[in-house]
Amino acid sequence: MQKNYSEKIYPIRYALISVYDKTGIIEFVTDLHKRNIKIIATEGTANLLIASGIPVLEVAKYTKFPEILNGRVKTLHPKIHGGILYRRGKDNYLIKDYKILPIDMIVVNFYPFEQKIFNKHCLVEDAIENLDIGGPTMLSSAAKNYEFVSIITKDTDYESILNELDANNNSLTLDTRLKLAIKAFKYLATYHNTIANYFNELTLPLYDHGEQNNSTITNNLPQTININFIKKQNMLYGENSHQSAAFYVQEFVDEKYSSNFSNLQGKTLSYNNMIDIDTALECLKEFVEPTCVIVKHANPCSVATSNSIYSAYSIAYKSDPISAFGGVIAFNCELDQYTVSLILECQFVEVIIVPSVTKTALKIISEKKKIRLILYNQWKNNIPKLDIKNINGGLLVQEHNSKTVDMNQLSVVTKIKPSKKELQDAMFCWKVSKFVKSNAIVCARDKTTIGIGAGQMSRIDAVKIANMKAKNAGLHTKNAVIASDAFFPFRDSIDFAATVMDVSCIIQPGGSIRDREIIEAANEHNIAMIFTNIRNFRH
Amino acid sequence: MQKNYSEKIYPIRYALISVYDKTGIIEFVTDLHKRNIKIIATEGTANLLIASGIPVLEVAKYTKFPEILNGRVKTLHPKIHGGILYRRGKDNYLIKDYKILPIDMIVVNFYPFEQKIFNKHCLVEDAIENLDIGGPTMLSSAAKNYEFVSIITKDTDYESILNELDANNNSLTLDTRLKLAIKAFKYLATYHNTIANYFNELTLPLYDHGEQNNSTITNNLPQTININFIKKQNMLYGENSHQSAAFYVQEFVDEKYSSNFSNLQGKTLSYNNMIDIDTALECLKEFVEPTCVIVKHANPCSVATSNSIYSAYSIAYKSDPISAFGGVIAFNCELDQYTVSLILECQFVEVIIVPSVTKTALKIISEKKKIRLILYNQWKNNIPKLDIKNINGGLLVQEHNSKTVDMNQLSVVTKIKPSKKELQDAMFCWKVSKFVKSNAIVCARDKTTIGIGAGQMSRIDAVKIANMKAKNAGLHTKNAVIASDAFFPFRDSIDFAATVMDVSCIIQPGGSIRDREIIEAANEHNIAMIFTNIRNFRH
Repeated sequence: MQKNYSEKIYPIRYALISVYDKTGIIEFVTDLHKRNIKIIATEGTANLLIASGIPVLEVAKYTKFPEILNGRVKTLHPKIHGGILYRRGKDNYLIKDYKILPIDMIVVNFYPFEQKIFNKHCLVEDAIENLDIGGPTMLSSAAKNYEFVSIITKDTDYESILNELDANNNSLTLDTRLKLAIKAFKYLATYHNTIANYFNELTLPLYDHGEQNNSTITNNLPQTININFIKKQNMLYGENSHQSAAFYVQEFVDEKYSSNFSNLQGKTLSYNNMIDIDTALECLKEFVEPTCVIVKHANPCSVATSNSIYSAYSIAYKSDPISAFGGVIAFNCELDQYTVSLILECQFVEVIIVPSVTKTALKIISEKKKIRLILYNQWKNNIPKLDIKNINGGLLVQEHNSKTVDMNQLSVVTKIKPSKKELQDAMFCWKVSKFVKSNAIVCARDKTTIGIGAGQMSRIDAVKIANMKAKNAGLHTKNAVIASDAFFPFRDSIDFAATVMDVSCIIQPGGSIRDREIIEAANEHNIAMIFTNIRNFRH
Repeated sequence: MQKNYSEKIYPIRYALISVYDKTGIIEFVTDLHKRNIKIIATEGTANLLIASGIPVLEVAKYTKFPEILNGRVKTLHPKIHGGILYRRGKDNYLIKDYKILPIDMIVVNFYPFEQKIFNKHCLVEDAIENLDIGGPTMLSSAAKNYEFVSIITKDTDYESILNELDANNNSLTLDTRLKLAIKAFKYLATYHNTIANYFNELTLPLYDHGEQNNSTITNNLPQTININFIKKQNMLYGENSHQSAAFYVQEFVDEKYSSNFSNLQGKTLSYNNMIDIDTALECLKEFVEPTCVIVKHANPCSVATSNSIYSAYSIAYKSDPISAFGGVIAFNCELDQYTVSLILECQFVEVIIVPSVTKTALKIISEKKKIRLILYNQWKNNIPKLDIKNINGGLLVQEHNSKTVDMNQLSVVTKIKPSKKELQDAMFCWKVSKFVKSNAIVCARDKTTIGIGAGQMSRIDAVKIANMKAKNAGLHTKNAVIASDAFFPFRDSIDFAATVMDVSCIIQPGGSIRDREIIEAANEHNIAMIFTNIRNFRH
């Protein structure tokens, strides 16, 4: 598909400079000038360059049209765009007939629209004033004519460009010009997405109405989703080895929103690793005391809170050693030598993820080169606002489930009230259940999961699986607590939890039309039951 | 945040027309002319209008600069952009000093870049020639100055604009001008995204390199993801009622890629409905004979193929009646009165999705107003290329798992070979297992699932759950077939399937380091085992 342009050498004659961000510009243009490239510039840029002793032709002098409207239209002139867009060779007559200068290089960056609106108190007038028109237009013309013209939009490219000019008779190769044009087109797309999103969100309360059957449903989700992501890392492969996969991060966003962990050692992460890491970290965020979360197939398979991560890992591992095999293990405290040694002794592990690691622990793990050791940074303010998932035909978008439950939001609905310990275990269970695929039942005691029933199509099956898993691990469920991510549709689960498992407390959202029957069942079995009034489905 | 512009009336004096798509333009401009609005136009548009008897000032005559370079720079002139951008009131002197005309309305659409490149044989030269520069620039100027200027980009708006001009003294309200500007900014963003994506993909083989630790991983996934989606339908709510949700489709794409079903009756769909519908339809696509798929919590809970959908539903329902409660039921044949009556008799259903429905069946279901009845269209060529999922910090993207297994790709690895019926059931099982969350085990006989073990963190648990579910439904597993979505890590699952379940055939990808041990186990139990050599993880 690539056009078969002949690789001719076009030494650069005129460079047009128009930059808002002037980082490195004096040095760069000085070096262009030394290479006998003539400089045209817009007023602000020109003043700076002239003050540095560089001869500059001002745009207004060249076009013979003054800078009107505070420079709003300075470069929107045929003598500028003719000079950029004319096809070298074919259209050379223009240069003579219309006294147009051959502009072979454009150095441009835009008014800082994104930076302006990042400030929540930015006035609409200021945002509008910072909508650049001349800059994007010059960029478009130059990128369109990349066969002959070089378009530079990043100061980080200045050095390599000077080197290439030296190596290449004051010209850039076609390959470089194309790369620069692609970079420019991306810059342009992102810039316009930012603008479209800004104005769209500005007017949301006025204009939100999905074209739906049932017009009574309204919400604050934007009318359009315009996103730009840039590839950060190729994954080993996707969910399966016949699928390629990669991880993308947002372009031009504040550092603290960017991908927030670094791979200290080990094989390239796979898609499934990333999903598991995300599940593990999101779950871990719910806990303050030393906690270990082990994840397999996007589900926590065991979670334990204790007085140290050594002990947390030790009891978490024992609660489901079979599932832990090949899992992702995450901690909320520094990884020490004792814990890492215990892990290596107990099991095969794919990924360990921690906020920091001691030197000795690092030395021990570095002998197992295949294990991925990941450090994560501070995670405050780092919660995605929207969940995005594509299905055939489009994109499903929802607000992220960031709701948590306070102790004081709970309502005890049974005659028996939970003890303090049961309440603590109930909160622990509930937090874990939020990250288990629905239908989810989590059984725990002493802040340790002892059986997790995940991903079931009927709730009673999830209860039975939680029990089966506890029994398989040789753990008893007497006086344990169970959490259910959604209400119980029938009393069968309560009967099973009481008579087969002998649990003493159940925490669940409530909200079933059979709630009364469910509560009665709990009362019959002398079980305490707590309603959270919030559901936590997750698929 | 909204700027407090005063609502002044600005009757439109000059309208500048520059359209590639000329649908309805003669009629619209004729009507502007009748309202005493003066017309400026670019050459092609001007010729058409003049031929229709409308007096037009050509851009070249106005700017006194000829259309050079095949019209590439016709409107890039300060007399055009000054006339659009000047602040009415404040900058009125410009009109006199520079002989600039007050351009209060822009009607513009762009060269058909997207249409051009939609043709896979489009040459790069043609694509480049269709990069519009003047159009987007006028759009930007007009939208930036929406306080005074109207920017029209869609012919579908012509009629309502004429009506508003009549009602509003030849002017548009500020509210309308802002809405038009927002529409214009979206058009611009989408246009530039298309361009950025085109050039990016054009050069993929040359420039693909994620900034990763392990530089040996390369793939064809694009370096950037620039997407624009538009809200099509607000969902009832998200995964839980405290989360808003909506469904988005791509802007400006060919019809056949758009959301492909219509809601005949019933409550607004929820987020979970959409996920379940997607799972049901994707699963259904694998089958040609009359088939019923019932989905709950994003997992098929039963699937059956038979000689009619009546019989398919009947046996599917019996294989897991508990999970079917409140589920999504999908068929690949027309819904008839007998099947719909049977469904209503058997169970509570949320969604029925079918390619068509008989009149009598429709009458029967219309009495149950809450049930959502969805019709889907032909689904050929409608497979998403990429799966997108956001995690904290970024976007995970992978190629969609569209790989299927042919009979001739299978390898039988045991002494016992599967019978023809076992092979058919094995293929049936395997197809279903692709849509069950991992770890997945599907047990089936006579092209009907009899137990599905979904979403487990250990494989042996998935096998035990498949067995448990068959037993719960009162079904025996003797001589059934089981499919595993990934290899068996240990022989325990084989032993369980043989001794407890008495299955006669197992289908699985193979690829474990213990494959020899696994095959030996199958041989010991006189079970046939088939390798697919493809894994089907799904999370």
